[in-house]
Amino acid sequence: MNLKVGFIGMGIMGVPMSLNILKGGYQLRVCNRSADKCAPLIREGAGKADTPKELAEWADVVILMLTGPEAVQETLDGEHGLLAGMASGKTLINMSTVSPAFAKELNQQLSRRSLFFIDAPVSGSKKPAEDGALVILAGGLPEKIDEFEPLLLKMGKKVVRCGQAGQGSAMKMTVNLLLGIMMEGLCESVNFGERCGLSAETIMDTILSGAMNCPLFALKQDMMKTGNFPPQFPLKHITKDLRFILNVADETGAAVPAGHAVFQLYRQGMGKGLSDSDFAAVKTILEKISD
Amino acid sequence: MNLKVGFIGMGIMGVPMSLNILKGGYQLRVCNRSADKCAPLIREGAGKADTPKELAEWADVVILMLTGPEAVQETLDGEHGLLAGMASGKTLINMSTVSPAFAKELNQQLSRRSLFFIDAPVSGSKKPAEDGALVILAGGLPEKIDEFEPLLLKMGKKVVRCGQAGQGSAMKMTVNLLLGIMMEGLCESVNFGERCGLSAETIMDTILSGAMNCPLFALKQDMMKTGNFPPQFPLKHITKDLRFILNVADETGAAVPAGHAVFQLYRQGMGKGLSDSDFAAVKTILEKISD
Amino acid sequence: MNLKVGFIGMGIMGVPMSLNILKGGYQLRVCNRSADKCAPLIREGAGKADTPKELAEWADVVILMLTGPEAVQETLDGEHGLLAGMASGKTLINMSTVSPAFAKELNQQLSRRSLFFIDAPVSGSKKPAEDGALVILAGGLPEKIDEFEPLLLKMGKKVVRCGQAGQGSAMKMTVNLLLGIMMEGLCESVNFGERCGLSAETIMDTILSGAMNCPLFALKQDMMKTGNFPPQFPLKHITKDLRFILNVADETGAAVPAGHAVFQLYRQGMGKGLSDSDFAAVKTILEKISD
Amino acid sequence: MNLKVGFIGMGIMGVPMSLNILKGGYQLRVCNRSADKCAPLIREGAGKADTPKELAEWADVVILMLTGPEAVQETLDGEHGLLAGMASGKTLINMSTVSPAFAKELNQQLSRRSLFFIDAPVSGSKKPAEDGALVILAGGLPEKIDEFEPLLLKMGKKVVRCGQAGQGSAMKMTVNLLLGIMMEGLCESVNFGERCGLSAETIMDTILSGAMNCPLFALKQDMMKTGNFPPQFPLKHITKDLRFILNVADETGAAVPAGHAVFQLYRQGMGKGLSDSDFAAVKTILEKISD
Repeated sequence: MNLKVGFIGMGIMGVPMSLNILKGGYQLRVCNRSADKCAPLIREGAGKADTPKELAEWADVVILMLTGPEAVQETLDGEHGLLAGMASGKTLINMSTVSPAFAKELNQQLSRRSLFFIDAPVSGSKKPAEDGALVILAGGLPEKIDEFEPLLLKMGKKVVRCGQAGQGSAMKMTVNLLLGIMMEGLCESVNFGERCGLSAETIMDTILSGAMNCPLFALKQDMMKTGNFPPQFPLKHITKDLRFILNVADETGAAVPAGHAVFQLYRQGMGKGLSDSDFAAVKTILEKISD
Repeated sequence: MNLKVGFIGMGIMGVPMSLNILKGGYQLRVCNRSADKCAPLIREGAGKADTPKELAEWADVVILMLTGPEAVQETLDGEHGLLAGMASGKTLINMSTVSPAFAKELNQQLSRRSLFFIDAPVSGSKKPAEDGALVILAGGLPEKIDEFEPLLLKMGKKVVRCGQAGQGSAMKMTVNLLLGIMMEGLCESVNFGERCGLSAETIMDTILSGAMNCPLFALKQDMMKTGNFPPQFPLKHITKDLRFILNVADETGAAVPAGHAVFQLYRQGMGKGLSDSDFAAVKTILEKISD
Repeated sequence: MNLKVGFIGMGIMGVPMSLNILKGGYQLRVCNRSADKCAPLIREGAGKADTPKELAEWADVVILMLTGPEAVQETLDGEHGLLAGMASGKTLINMSTVSPAFAKELNQQLSRRSLFFIDAPVSGSKKPAEDGALVILAGGLPEKIDEFEPLLLKMGKKVVRCGQAGQGSAMKMTVNLLLGIMMEGLCESVNFGERCGLSAETIMDTILSGAMNCPLFALKQDMMKTGNFPPQFPLKHITKDLRFILNVADETGAAVPAGHAVFQLYRQGMGKGLSDSDFAAVKTILEKISD
Repeated sequence: MNLKVGFIGMGIMGVPMSLNILKGGYQLRVCNRSADKCAPLIREGAGKADTPKELAEWADVVILMLTGPEAVQETLDGEHGLLAGMASGKTLINMSTVSPAFAKELNQQLSRRSLFFIDAPVSGSKKPAEDGALVILAGGLPEKIDEFEPLLLKMGKKVVRCGQAGQGSAMKMTVNLLLGIMMEGLCESVNFGERCGLSAETIMDTILSGAMNCPLFALKQDMMKTGNFPPQFPLKHITKDLRFILNVADETGAAVPAGHAVFQLYRQGMGKGLSDSDFAAVKTILEKISD
C-alpha cells in the first residue's frame, strides 16, 4: 500500500479509474496533457506531475489510459517523456487500447531498458469504470501480474490472465469484435421489427426476457426506444477498434465476415456526423439505408 | 381448467411443451404424423387422436408446433385435416415458426370459417421448453390472447402481446435475426481470438464476465471449448429462419447487412454436413474459411 | 417462311423483337393485355389477336416476352388463355426472364398436353433488340431449337444451345449475375476514384483504354459523367433478377458473396425512387452511403 | 534520344518494359537487387549499375518498377541509395504500385531536394508490358509529363494525365478495384452456372458474345474451362492492392461494399496456397465455399 502509483490520461475512463486507486488507499500522482483535467483528482487529494518524466521519477508503477498507440508513444518519447525518467526495474501498465503488435513492440522497447511491462486493456466502459467493475485483460510476466493484481482490482472486478504481453490486447480485440457485431445486430433487428410494425419497446422487452438478455442490451434499451444516443462508448471508438481488428484478422488469416459488414456501417456513421454519439447510433445508419 | 386441449407436433419442442400443459391440469389429446412419437405423452396420461380432424372434433382449442408452413398447411387441409373437423367458434393457436405473411393468410383462412386464430411462436429452445420458461410472442385478438393466456403460461414464463395476427411471427423473425447474428458473432470472435493465440476457455471466461454475458453464450460455452455441437437449435432451423427473414426484409425494405453475411455462412454449413448440428457449428465454417 | 408466328408482350423489348420478325418476312400476329400497345406493329402490317387463346388457335408457334413468371402463367391459364387454344404439336417459345425451376415446370405443363417448349431468354437490352443483335439462350429439344433457329435469328445474332428446358433460364441468371456485379463494380470504382479527386471522365477514359473495356461500360460512359440515368435496363429489373438468382444459388448451394452485396445496393435503390432509372443509378446509392 | 535512362526492378514487368525502352533507341542502364536478373537486358545491349546510387549518378531520369512502397523506399535510402547519387534537377518516375499517400510523400521528399517526380503506375500485366501496350497513369507536373511522354510511350500505348503526384496511384487503385471485382464476378457467375448444370465453355462463349465481352475475360477463358491458373497477375498482388484500396476508401469515406466482399475471398486464397496462382484462382475459393 506504500506503492507510489502514477496515472497518465484523465479522460472519460481515466478519471474514475484513478479515483478508485486513490480511494483504494494508494499514493497517487496524475498527469495529463491538458493539465486542468487533473482537477477532479487533485480535489480528492492526488498529487500532480507536470510531465511524464517527472511522474516516472517519482512513481513505482505508471499506468497509461490514453486514446491510442500514438498517444502512448508520444508519452514515452522525448525529453520530458516517461522513458527519460523511468529507472530500471520499474513497471509500466498500459491500459489504453492498442493493437497486439504495438503491445508486443512496447514490451520489447521496455525490456531493452530493463523495465517491466503489463499489457492490460479493459473490457467495460464508463459505468463499470466508476463502479470499479471493469474486466482487466492482462498479458505479461505472471509474477508481475500477480504483484500488481491488488492494484488492478481497485479498478476492476476481475483480472483475466491472457498470456504474454500482446495477449491482453488480443483479448480486447476479440471482445470488441463481438461488441461491434452484437450492437449492430441489436440495431439491425430492432429496425427490422419496426418495419414489420412492432414497437422498439415491445421488441426490447422480448429480447430482455430471453436467452439473449445481457447488461449491454439493457443499457441501450432507452436509446432503442427514443432514438437518442448519448455517448457511453462513442461510435468513433468502435470504428477505430474494428479497423485494428480487421488488420489483425488480415495478418492472422482469421475470417471476419460480420466484422467487415459492421465496420462498413460504423465507418459510414463517422461520415454522417455520428462520431461522438454512442455506437448504438449505428441504428440511424441502418434506418437511412432502409427504404 | 375443463378446457380440452389438442396438440399436434411431437418434436423436440412439442413433447416438453405439451407435457407442461398436461402437468398444468388440462385435458390433453395429442396427434402426430408418426404416431409412435406420441408415446411419452400417452405414458403420462394424455389421450391420442388418429387424425387432425378427429382431434379438432374433440378439442376446444388446438395448438400446432410443427416444422414450418408446409406442415401447418398440410395439417389443416384434406379429408382428415383440422379444418374438416373444427366447428366455428373454436380457436387454433399456431406456435410453429412461419413467416408473418403466412400467419396473416392463415388468419384470413380461419376467419372466413368463423374460427379464431392466435399467432404464437416462441422464443427459446429445448431447455426453456422443458422448464416452461419459453417467451411466447402472441399476435391476434386481444380478448382471445387474454382468454388463452393461462394455457400459454403453462408452456412459457411470459406472453408478449405483439399486435394482430402476423405480428407474433414478425417478432419471432426479429428475435431470430438477432439470434443468428449473435451466435455467428460469438463464433467469429472466438475463432479470431484463437488465431491470436488465446484459448477458447479464457475467451469465454472473459465474455461471460462482462456486459455481453447472456444465457445463450453461457449455454454454448462447452461447444466453443470442445468443438462438439450437439443440437439444441439445429443449424438447419436458423438457416430456414434467416431465409424467411431475408425475404421479409426484402419486402419491407429493411436493411439487413449482417443478416446477409451470416445467412451465407449458415447456408454453407448446410452443404458441409452440419444441418443437424447445433447452429454454433457455424464456428466450423469460420475455421474452414480462415487460413 | 409460311410459318405463322404469334407474339405476346409489346414492351420495351417485345416491340423491336417482333418488328424484326415481321421485317424478316414471317406472318405475324401480336397480342397484348393493353391492346393499344400493339399499334406500332399493326402500323407495319402485323395482325392482331384479342386474346392469347385466339392467337394460339391461329399461330404455329407462339413467342412470349413478358415481365416475369406471373405474367407468363396468367397468359397460359383461363378461359381465354393460350392453353385453351393451342393444338397439340405446336410450340411455345418463352423469352421472358423466369427462374430455371419455373421454366422446367412450364416444360412439364406443356409436355403433358403434347406441346413443345423452348426456354429462350435473351442477353441484351433495348439497343441490341432493335438491331436484331440479341444473344438467345436456348434450352429445349435440340431438334426444336434447330427448327426455330431461323426465326430466332431474326431477333438475335446468335443462338447459344444451353441444354434442356430450364438451362436457357439458368444461363440468363448466370449472365445477369455478372451483369449486376459488373455494373455495381463500375459505379463503386468510379465513386472511389472521384473521392480521390479524379474526374469520372478520366476514369472512364482509362477503363475504356484497358483490358476491361467492354460495350456495357462504353454504353454507360455518359451516365457516369453526367449522373443522369435514362433507363436502358431499369434498376427494378436487375433487382428482380438478382432476387431470382439468390434463390437459385440458395437451392444449388452456389456461393454468391458479391451477388448478396450488390443485391442489397440495388434493393436500396428501389426504396430511394430509382426503380425506373437505369441500373447504373446504383452509383447514386454508393454516393449516399459514402461520407 | 540522347536521354540516359536508368531502370530499377527486373521483375515480370520490369524486364519487358525496360526492353521496350532499349528497343526504342534510348541509352539504358539497369539495376536490380539480385544482379543476375539484369542478364536479359545486358544481353540486348543495356548497361548495368551496381547500386541505385551509381545508376542515379549516370542517368538523366530513373524509372522504378518494384514490388511496393517498402522496396521503393529502400532503393531511395542509405549510403548506396538513389538519393545519395541524384543531382538536383533530375527526374524520378515511379511505376511501382503504391498508395496515393505514399506517392504524395515521395513527391515531397524529392521536391525538398529539388528533384522532379512523376507518379506513373500502369494498368496492364505481362502481355501488354511485352507489347508496349500498357496504359500509363501519370500524376505530376504537366510539363514534366510532357517531357517524358515519348519515353513513357515506348512502354505504353497511352499516357493518361490524372493530375498531380498521387493521382496516378489513385487511378491505379480505382482501376484495380474494378479489376478485383470483375474477376471475382466472372468466377462467381461461372461457378453459379456450373452448379445449374451449364458448362464453363458455354458460359464463357455466351459472355464473350455479349455486352460484357472484354479482353480481360477473353484472356481468362481457358482458366475458367480448365481450372488451371498459370499466373498472369498473381493473386497475392490483387490481394495487396485491395488491402491498399480498402485503406484509402476508409480514409476518403468511399463506400466499397463489393471491395470488402472480394478482398475477403482473395485473402482466403492466400491462406489456401493460391498466392502465386493467377488471381482467377479465386474461382477455386468460390467452389470450396459452395456446397
